[in-house]
Amino acid sequence: MHEAPARGFERSEFEARLNKAQGLMVQQGFDGILLLSEPEVRYFSGFHTLFWQSPTRPWFLYLPSAGEPVAVIPGIGADLMGRTWVRDIRTWDAPNPGDDGISLLLDLLGPLNAAGHTLGILKGHETGLRMPLGDYERLMDGLPNIGVKDATKLIRQLRMVKSEAEIAKLAHICTIGSNTFDTVPNFAHEGAPLEGVFRAFRRSALSLGADDVPYLVGGADQGGYQDVISPPSRRPLQVGDILMLDTGATFDGYFCDFDRNFAITRADDASRQAYDVLWRATEAGLDAARPGNTCRDLFIAMRRVIAELDDQDANVGRLGHGLGMQLTEWPSHAAFDETVLQENMVITLEPSLCYGDGRTMVHEENLVIVDGAPRLLSRRAAPELPVIQGGQIEATIRN
Amino acid sequence: MHEAPARGFERSEFEARLNKAQGLMVQQGFDGILLLSEPEVRYFSGFHTLFWQSPTRPWFLYLPSAGEPVAVIPGIGADLMGRTWVRDIRTWDAPNPGDDGISLLLDLLGPLNAAGHTLGILKGHETGLRMPLGDYERLMDGLPNIGVKDATKLIRQLRMVKSEAEIAKLAHICTIGSNTFDTVPNFAHEGAPLEGVFRAFRRSALSLGADDVPYLVGGADQGGYQDVISPPSRRPLQVGDILMLDTGATFDGYFCDFDRNFAITRADDASRQAYDVLWRATEAGLDAARPGNTCRDLFIAMRRVIAELDDQDANVGRLGHGLGMQLTEWPSHAAFDETVLQENMVITLEPSLCYGDGRTMVHEENLVIVDGAPRLLSRRAAPELPVIQGGQIEATIRN
Repeated sequence: MHEAPARGFERSEFEARLNKAQGLMVQQGFDGILLLSEPEVRYFSGFHTLFWQSPTRPWFLYLPSAGEPVAVIPGIGADLMGRTWVRDIRTWDAPNPGDDGISLLLDLLGPLNAAGHTLGILKGHETGLRMPLGDYERLMDGLPNIGVKDATKLIRQLRMVKSEAEIAKLAHICTIGSNTFDTVPNFAHEGAPLEGVFRAFRRSALSLGADDVPYLVGGADQGGYQDVISPPSRRPLQVGDILMLDTGATFDGYFCDFDRNFAITRADDASRQAYDVLWRATEAGLDAARPGNTCRDLFIAMRRVIAELDDQDANVGRLGHGLGMQLTEWPSHAAFDETVLQENMVITLEPSLCYGDGRTMVHEENLVIVDGAPRLLSRRAAPELPVIQGGQIEATIRN
Repeated sequence: MHEAPARGFERSEFEARLNKAQGLMVQQGFDGILLLSEPEVRYFSGFHTLFWQSPTRPWFLYLPSAGEPVAVIPGIGADLMGRTWVRDIRTWDAPNPGDDGISLLLDLLGPLNAAGHTLGILKGHETGLRMPLGDYERLMDGLPNIGVKDATKLIRQLRMVKSEAEIAKLAHICTIGSNTFDTVPNFAHEGAPLEGVFRAFRRSALSLGADDVPYLVGGADQGGYQDVISPPSRRPLQVGDILMLDTGATFDGYFCDFDRNFAITRADDASRQAYDVLWRATEAGLDAARPGNTCRDLFIAMRRVIAELDDQDANVGRLGHGLGMQLTEWPSHAAFDETVLQENMVITLEPSLCYGDGRTMVHEENLVIVDGAPRLLSRRAAPELPVIQGGQIEATIRN
């Protein structure tokens, strides 16, 4: 196992993030931004816990346009937040359905309200409201003079471009992901129930250094699988199955997100052909993944190759996305997304197609945009559909 | 390994859930309910996928007050939703930030709007809005005559009381959790970095039949740990540490949620005493866990024992909660929660206290409310703080 990067970030990294945010806030007319979601609170504070899985308690981080961030959080988090760089930490005994942080927020935001200032809230694409909507409405009723403005674009601008320390974590987990896919022939064989294959994959990733494997989906069926978001069945793998595993494993709160396809003992021609098209579509994506090109350009480059076999979209709506603290992040490689690629963006390329009798196939790599050809974080998939035979990959012969 | 229950549910279970919901909708004045969150969509449809981890796409399930549910979902989920009992499935090519399901929802809800009817949305405690707030506001602007009413209480009433099939899944994962805690002495010893202990715990749970271990937190420090929601450090375990692991492992989308404490090689008196108090507080909770008592009664029964050592609350706000498809669910064992316990509610008892120099300790069991003494789903923790020595638990001697 290669050396794992240090956990957490230097204080200077958080200061840099806040400084950039505050610069943009002044430019874009925000007097403060109230953050409620795990990745955003973590991005600016370093507060990192799985406790967000409990839906019971809301958590808040306020960024003023000048000065230090303020955490408004349940008391159960006081110790952990106290170990971050955040110094102004205000807590209440949560849960308290009658007042889950609302009066603390009213105190904090009172001056903005009195001055008729503008408060940023995430209201845009790929966001949600991680507090009860009723509480949000009550909060806003208590701040009648505040101007609420969507801060999604500002936060997206910052989070899409990764720091060197973030890229080191992403590179590490992608290497672990690649190493894990190399072990798949050890446990994916004829007769192995798919459920057991999933469990063995997770165990393997943990052995190889993943903190966790929060995301693992896939499918297996004769001559191809039919959807790409299923949990595993107990069906045993059969000769002629095409198996796909798509994983989001994590290290220190950063995700890899890629998949691999395997044929069990033998591969049918249609699946080999679909694989070849997707492999070349990914090559086209890699060729187009240059600073200055747009996500739409990436989409068009990959679509052009996919169209050799499938002139419909495979219902997935896009051909890749950003990657970081979330399994999927802005931007989207889709016709609607004209985000310009910049150095240090970390993205996936994820071409997919439909073929045969309702079969689908996906293919995915993770990479960093750099000056020139992109830096692959996942080890590039084999150019031909790997066939698992006798516990190892048999080189396939192209028809 | 004991036999795992069947995955999924019979169609009759979904019909029963919908029938009950529709009965309550008529009573409580809802013409329809729009659900957006993973547990609720799964509860009524059976749609089960980890794909919810991607924040990119919203998913909707509409329950009319009479008739069948309607799924309004991204195309990528069409195949999987098509395998549930839901027949009316409307899809769009998501992501599409310009119209992520909104025009489909406007079509669906148009008749309610025209009639000035009442639409239920989850706006209450322990809920969030899993769609962009901006899209929600646009949707509501398009339905000016609809009455929006909080449906949290109705959904909570249903979900709090589990079916036999749900209890079988919960019992199964709790047994796997208990079996996993039995393996902790194999890997938690002096010199083992806490990070490695977490990884070994996850691998062990997977070997023993867990689908996944989405939640694992804990701590270890000399004479007690300081918070209960941290990810693991790389610090090696030391003689005299108190180690706590708290896990939410899953089987078929149902969670266990309990913790165990261990002393490494030797236990200090203060930690032994804290453990004893919490063990007896749990006993008091078990004695009070009877149909007809309230969550507040449970809280008071446990608080009375905890007060022997700690007359402050340990900042956690409650002493247990509901358990099911989420790591934590309604109700809360807290002074504010007067929910009456009913047969087939599945809950945790989770007393906690502060002691010594800023130390905290937690203790947790999972159980089903039945007629009479509750049925424990987790195997009851040892009555005295277990001490790990030479790869096994050494019986402790009470001072």
